[in-house]
Amino acid sequence: MTNNTNSKCVIAIDAMGGDFAPLNAVVGAIEAFNETKDFDLFLVGKKDEIEEVIKNNNLVFNSDFIVHASQVIDMHDHPTETMKTKPNSSMAIGAKLVKDGKAHAFVSAGNTGAMVVNSIFGMGRIKGVSRPTLTAPLPNAKDGFTFLADVGAFVDSKPQHIFEFALLSSIFLREIYGIKEPRVGLMNVGSEDSKGYKLTLDTAELLQNSNLNFIGNVEGNDIFKGTADLIVCDGFIGNILLKFAESMPSFLKAAIKNYANKSILNKLKVSPFKFPPTKAAFKESLSKADADNVGGLPLLGVNGISIIGHGSSSTLAIKNMVLAAREMHNKNLIFKIKEELSRYAEQK
Amino acid sequence: MTNNTNSKCVIAIDAMGGDFAPLNAVVGAIEAFNETKDFDLFLVGKKDEIEEVIKNNNLVFNSDFIVHASQVIDMHDHPTETMKTKPNSSMAIGAKLVKDGKAHAFVSAGNTGAMVVNSIFGMGRIKGVSRPTLTAPLPNAKDGFTFLADVGAFVDSKPQHIFEFALLSSIFLREIYGIKEPRVGLMNVGSEDSKGYKLTLDTAELLQNSNLNFIGNVEGNDIFKGTADLIVCDGFIGNILLKFAESMPSFLKAAIKNYANKSILNKLKVSPFKFPPTKAAFKESLSKADADNVGGLPLLGVNGISIIGHGSSSTLAIKNMVLAAREMHNKNLIFKIKEELSRYAEQK
Repeated sequence: MTNNTNSKCVIAIDAMGGDFAPLNAVVGAIEAFNETKDFDLFLVGKKDEIEEVIKNNNLVFNSDFIVHASQVIDMHDHPTETMKTKPNSSMAIGAKLVKDGKAHAFVSAGNTGAMVVNSIFGMGRIKGVSRPTLTAPLPNAKDGFTFLADVGAFVDSKPQHIFEFALLSSIFLREIYGIKEPRVGLMNVGSEDSKGYKLTLDTAELLQNSNLNFIGNVEGNDIFKGTADLIVCDGFIGNILLKFAESMPSFLKAAIKNYANKSILNKLKVSPFKFPPTKAAFKESLSKADADNVGGLPLLGVNGISIIGHGSSSTLAIKNMVLAAREMHNKNLIFKIKEELSRYAEQK
Repeated sequence: MTNNTNSKCVIAIDAMGGDFAPLNAVVGAIEAFNETKDFDLFLVGKKDEIEEVIKNNNLVFNSDFIVHASQVIDMHDHPTETMKTKPNSSMAIGAKLVKDGKAHAFVSAGNTGAMVVNSIFGMGRIKGVSRPTLTAPLPNAKDGFTFLADVGAFVDSKPQHIFEFALLSSIFLREIYGIKEPRVGLMNVGSEDSKGYKLTLDTAELLQNSNLNFIGNVEGNDIFKGTADLIVCDGFIGNILLKFAESMPSFLKAAIKNYANKSILNKLKVSPFKFPPTKAAFKESLSKADADNVGGLPLLGVNGISIIGHGSSSTLAIKNMVLAAREMHNKNLIFKIKEELSRYAEQK
């Protein structure tokens, strides 16, 4: 199957991935399919369980497109070990569909680490990529997104790896979000060039000498400020920052509740927050980067479209993941990444 | 001067430190002094500028307690270079007052890196400490604090350094916040023991084999959850997390404003936020860990009390920094740290 927008898009979904699988995965994916009907959908997982969900939810789905997988990877499985212990998992089989040219994309809300490993070993890496990256959007004060890469595909990165995170994510932002020259910031403890340590200094040098639109060092407060379109860092810190950001809404709720519980006067002062439209508005103003809206995160640098969702994915989140995969195919993302990486290799 | 609660507390303040120095530093410190009058206060900096602030604000202060320093370190000075280029800075002279036994504490809202360097070289490290640490409180959902160490005294830490951050901060939490056995978490990308990389695995082993109340790996979302009293990590990530957290309130404000600007209906929905008591309540429920309330962060592990404040410190923040230094002296913090570290050395 060629990476060409002329070929009909084929998306495989891990029916067994996520805390509410197979229900949410199957229902969400079929909802996406019914909405556009311009792509083919494979449901990968335990055939009997998938069929039960289809039946119980009165859905219509051609059973030829159910691909049986006898094993399931759960949240407690050690990512790399699944390659040995679960060769017939829905993840392994889904990634293989892409490798074998039977699908363009594989999406899963299952164990993130296992999905990274299965995607890399199943689909292979694009030539020139040593470490693929997970890129995540965070909301910013400018009513847009600040993307963060890597958010946990790899920890303990070398300068070349972080440079690749920047390169891959810049192509992604350009092709999918239409940002012509994404401003790339390097996460650091100060904006001055001298800040940081060997890893950041060497990474800055690579970014400086590239064609990327590198704006220099940025700090923790630049994520929400929207100073850069993309901030790159090692996956250890990116993952911690992402989880910290995700926990903000429930902290806010608790902080207001704790304040209210201190006195009757406090309770009165915050009572407008309980007014349902206001409560909903507050939630909505923070929901831009929610799992429901974003769907999932692309694993960039593997030889095919791989999208990884939150374990707690709703049917809406799953639906949006599938539609995101469709968009990446229609915009020819993998081809564009290959093209740019081979250009990069020539320049060296 | 002995580290003994019986000796009258003497605190030196960097009158030239902070964006609004010498005004805020001088006024805030004298306010703290006037409130308790049970400690001696040295104002360190340019004598004429300090005297002008005192005069212009109709304050009364014994000029014998003004210690002249001819040089000023600014925010653009490279921390370690100040040791050579500015030996007569207010920071160098303030730290020397502690070293020479003329003061117990030195506090500054100036250049953080320079204050770390001047404190370490001026006061020296406590025996057994290879790297001192800056410990910061972040608010949590349980209406308490989750402390984070290190938040930027040092980057590129080794396992032993992070272990020392845990040890020093645990003593601090016990002695100053009365938490008998602070729960210590290690910042990581997952809670399972196998998560992370060599640095986190080796650090976990040191923590596991210590007398500290180590609860294992924690993740980014555990800061706000309040899973641990103290979370330890390298200063690179701690600094980025702290700045990210500090930028949250202004992001929230912008997010609500952006939402309101989308339609008249949205504007109506969020209008209760503009009701002044509600607005104030919202701000107050998030202000627990504000610079104004916290004052400054202790640099733990140096041979004396060193407190570093935010560059934008208000007079209230300065006042609270001075009062925090007074409390650390009265609770005999430095003596307790020395005692525990020598016990630790014996056990080895």
